[in-house]
Amino acid sequence: MNRKELFQIIQKKKSFLCVGLDTDIKKIPEHLLSTDDPVFEFNKKIVDATHEFTVAYKPNLAFYESLGSKGWISLEKTVNYIRSITSDIFIIADAKRGDIGNTSAMYAQTFFDTYDFDGVTLAPYMGLDTVSPFLNYKDRWSIILALTSNKSASDFQYIEDKSNKPLFENVLETAQTWGANDQIMFVVGATKAEALQGIRKIAPDSFLLVPGVGAQGGSLEEVAKYGMNDHCGLLVNSSRGIIYASTEKDFGTIAGEKAKELQQEMEIHLKNFGLI
Amino acid sequence: MNRKELFQIIQKKKSFLCVGLDTDIKKIPEHLLSTDDPVFEFNKKIVDATHEFTVAYKPNLAFYESLGSKGWISLEKTVNYIRSITSDIFIIADAKRGDIGNTSAMYAQTFFDTYDFDGVTLAPYMGLDTVSPFLNYKDRWSIILALTSNKSASDFQYIEDKSNKPLFENVLETAQTWGANDQIMFVVGATKAEALQGIRKIAPDSFLLVPGVGAQGGSLEEVAKYGMNDHCGLLVNSSRGIIYASTEKDFGTIAGEKAKELQQEMEIHLKNFGLI
Repeated sequence: MNRKELFQIIQKKKSFLCVGLDTDIKKIPEHLLSTDDPVFEFNKKIVDATHEFTVAYKPNLAFYESLGSKGWISLEKTVNYIRSITSDIFIIADAKRGDIGNTSAMYAQTFFDTYDFDGVTLAPYMGLDTVSPFLNYKDRWSIILALTSNKSASDFQYIEDKSNKPLFENVLETAQTWGANDQIMFVVGATKAEALQGIRKIAPDSFLLVPGVGAQGGSLEEVAKYGMNDHCGLLVNSSRGIIYASTEKDFGTIAGEKAKELQQEMEIHLKNFGLI
Repeated sequence: MNRKELFQIIQKKKSFLCVGLDTDIKKIPEHLLSTDDPVFEFNKKIVDATHEFTVAYKPNLAFYESLGSKGWISLEKTVNYIRSITSDIFIIADAKRGDIGNTSAMYAQTFFDTYDFDGVTLAPYMGLDTVSPFLNYKDRWSIILALTSNKSASDFQYIEDKSNKPLFENVLETAQTWGANDQIMFVVGATKAEALQGIRKIAPDSFLLVPGVGAQGGSLEEVAKYGMNDHCGLLVNSSRGIIYASTEKDFGTIAGEKAKELQQEMEIHLKNFGLI
């Protein structure tokens, strides 16, 4: 999916919501545990209830990997299921991979050939070599960690170079030279909404994947205020606030309601910015 | 496995060799392709032929993931097979994971509970939060990327802060405060053997995982000269130089010979340093 198509879906759905499928077998409703593939059954219900309100899904790979090969089967079924019910969706592998050369090419193959993801999150520590094999896939996205929302982000991301530029700004500047902004996106944590203002000066045209709205406490209003650009430029993720809003049999319905609430708030912001 | 035990295995086997299981289905001998699980059959033969000369195996997860859930089954069988034939071995998941909080805990669960790895490679970009869940597992290791051997390592790893300290040195210093050196190890690329001298000033007691000897061109002699400490402190990896030394039916035998050659060279260095 290219940038224009992504923006068209945002306009059509009046939403820039990404639903994080951090599906934890220990947290899903008990009645699903007797099914053959509880993780997939859970995701299926969540997708059925939310896809009308969301432009992206983001399975968090750790949750699938922790179940071994079974988890990867659940993941594959989830991606295929999403593709089977809608073409208006962007699917992100939240994998935070980062390796080089032939290894990186293998990861690109994993996420873009073996699995049909639109984008994958990548760690920038090893530089361009990490990203370049992913850029060989047209209309697929490298989503690079820039500024994360966790406490220890400050361990390294805020280290300033001799021109007072923190590492995350170096990442934003350098990574933009690696490819066009219809293939490179950045992860920017929402707990630092005011930081989006500075980030937009460095990366005015890039799409930003913003985790941390909802359970992690970021404000959607602030994210829109500081982060939105003329093609929206935002995918705002919510995971736990949607998928675990109920742990009973009604979890699908409740997840749909929570997604709709966020979509409606997003619609207001998109209107205020004159994008719909 | 703790540091003392690792050193004992190094002394017993007179080797600090790590064999990288970068098993690529496109590169393994053709006669294996008709078996049920060619990747596992390849690894089994490699392990049979090399385990006498090696202290560690390092499956590179990208190669397994690229095959989807089947690849994870091959990986699981490989780890279990290694455990079944020897207890004198350290197994590393070359995963380069890096996430936070509950996600990081899931990754730790994957590699230390679901799979029986001794250590896992981790990217430091997101800071301590990435590593702390792994440190909760006693006698399991977090192997943190410090200085990598690829060309674009310079994109970020060499950025100097205001006190002229490059990022990789900041990583080495900070990460040592996160846990003891019997749980934290660093990845240091061998193409920069002379850099090991500086690294040993910052991390004199840490184990270093050194990839890039062999096909990637590092010199074992220089690595030993600059990197060895009083408990060896080195795991030197070779992947392609061993596992693809022959692509014929004799690949196991030839891999064993190549591993033995490296072991014999390592034995000389261990003797020269008075460690055996």
